[in-house]
Amino acid sequence: MNRLSLNQKTVNGLGLAHAVEVCARFGIGAIGVWREPLHEFGVERGVELVRGSGLRVSSLCRGGFFTRPDRAEVIADNRAAIDETAALGAECLVLVVGGLPRGSRDLAGARERVRSVLAELAPYAADRGVLLALEPMHPIYCADRGVLSTLGQALDLAEEHEPSVVGVVVDTFHVWWDPDLAAQVARARGRIASFQVCDWITPLPADALLARGVMGDGHVDFRAVADLVVAAGYGGDVEVEIFNAELWASDADEAVALVRDRYDRHVGL
Amino acid sequence: MNRLSLNQKTVNGLGLAHAVEVCARFGIGAIGVWREPLHEFGVERGVELVRGSGLRVSSLCRGGFFTRPDRAEVIADNRAAIDETAALGAECLVLVVGGLPRGSRDLAGARERVRSVLAELAPYAADRGVLLALEPMHPIYCADRGVLSTLGQALDLAEEHEPSVVGVVVDTFHVWWDPDLAAQVARARGRIASFQVCDWITPLPADALLARGVMGDGHVDFRAVADLVVAAGYGGDVEVEIFNAELWASDADEAVALVRDRYDRHVGL
Repeated sequence: MNRLSLNQKTVNGLGLAHAVEVCARFGIGAIGVWREPLHEFGVERGVELVRGSGLRVSSLCRGGFFTRPDRAEVIADNRAAIDETAALGAECLVLVVGGLPRGSRDLAGARERVRSVLAELAPYAADRGVLLALEPMHPIYCADRGVLSTLGQALDLAEEHEPSVVGVVVDTFHVWWDPDLAAQVARARGRIASFQVCDWITPLPADALLARGVMGDGHVDFRAVADLVVAAGYGGDVEVEIFNAELWASDADEAVALVRDRYDRHVGL
Repeated sequence: MNRLSLNQKTVNGLGLAHAVEVCARFGIGAIGVWREPLHEFGVERGVELVRGSGLRVSSLCRGGFFTRPDRAEVIADNRAAIDETAALGAECLVLVVGGLPRGSRDLAGARERVRSVLAELAPYAADRGVLLALEPMHPIYCADRGVLSTLGQALDLAEEHEPSVVGVVVDTFHVWWDPDLAAQVARARGRIASFQVCDWITPLPADALLARGVMGDGHVDFRAVADLVVAAGYGGDVEVEIFNAELWASDADEAVALVRDRYDRHVGL
C-alpha cells in the first residue's frame, strides 16, 4: 500500500459516498475531503461514513479566505471548518488565504490581514487538536485567490505559532518554480502538514483555475520535489489534487486509474 | 517632461518609423526598441533614424533564450543583439532567459545553463559598453519563457558580474506579487537597468502571453513599486510595455493617449 491519497477535487462532482467507494475499490488508503460535498452529504452522516470506511483523511479542504470583508463571518466559517476537521479526524485543515479584497491594491494590507485572522483562529484550532495548513499558492493566483505566494512567506507566518497548530502545504503546482524551494522545504521540517501533487502544463488552459495537469503531462519533476519533502521528514500521505476540466469530464473510474498509474510512475511514494 | 518611455510592444505592429514619430508627436522622450521591427526596418537605417530623432533609447528588447539547445547559435544571436544595443546607444539589452528545453523537467539544469551562457556573453558586452539586463519573469512563464522567476534570483546571477555589465529589470507585471520585493529592490541599488510597468488583470485573459493590462485596469499598486525603485536610486526612464490584444487592436494614437494618461495618473514619475 502506497501513500497516495485521493483528493475529492480530482473526482469533482462524484459526491462523498462515491469518492469513498472508489478509494476502497482502487486500493487507495486515504482521502482528502472537501467541505462542499461533505455539507451536501450532511456533516454528521459524512463523518460517520468516512470514519467507518477505514480511510485515512489526509486533509479537509478548505478553510481560509481570510481577506473577505466580513471578518466575523470569516471567523465563524473557519471555526466551523476546524470543527469539521476535528470530527473527521483529518490530518489538517487546508487554508487558502484569499486574494486582494475587491477593488483593493493594498497587497501588504491583505497579507497583514491574513496574519491577524490566523492569530485569532489559532487558539480555537489548538484547543481542538486541529492542525491549520497554510497553502502558498502560485503567484498566478495572488490577486484573486491567495496572497500567500511562496513557501518561505507561509513559513514566516506559520513560525509565529506552534508546529502542532500551524503548518504548511507543499503543492507541486504552486511551488515547483520557486528558486528557493530546496532551502524552504528543508526549513519546513516539522511543519509540512500536507504534500499535494499535480502538474504544471503548457500552454496554460484558458481558465487559470482549471490549469492543472495529471502528473507526467507537464513540466514538474515530482521525484525532485518528493525527495526534498521526504528529506525534510514528511511521512504522511500524498494527495493528488487536480483541477482539470478534461479529467472531470471523463469517467471517474478511468480518471482514478489514470491518476493511480501516473502517481506510481512519477511520484512513487 | 516626464520619464515615460514607450516600449514598442505597446504599439505592436506599428513599425519603427511610426513608433518614433508617435513618440515625438505625443511628447514622449524615450523609446524601448524591439529587435524584430528594427531588423524589418534595417538595422543601419533604424539606428540612424532613432539616433536622429533625439529620443533616449531606454532598452533594446530582447536578447536571451539562453536555454535553447544550439548554444553556438544562442551566443551568436546575443552577440548580434549586443552590437545592436551599442549601435543604438540603448541603456541596456533586456534578456528573457528562456524556459525549460522542450521535453525537459530539469529546472535546476536550465538555470545553471543561464548562468553559464551569461558568463560567456558578459565579456563581449563589457568590451562594447553594453549593460545586460536580466529580466525576472512571473512564475507563470517559468516553464516556457523564463526560468528566472524572482528579482532575488536575478540579483544572485547579476552579482557574479560588474554592475556596469549585468543589471536587472524590474517589471511590475512580473514582480508585483513577490513578498520579498521591498528587500530585493533595495538590494538592487546600482543594478536596476530598466523599470517597466504594466498591470496584472483578472480574470487572466485566455492567452497567458497577452495577459497584461494598462495601468489602472488591474491590481498593481504602481506608486508603491515606483517608490521602492526610486528609493533604490533608479533615475532612468520608465517603460510602458503592454502585451494586450485589445490594446493592439485599437487605433495607435488612442492607445498612446490612453497609456500616457494612465501613466501620469498611476505611475507619475
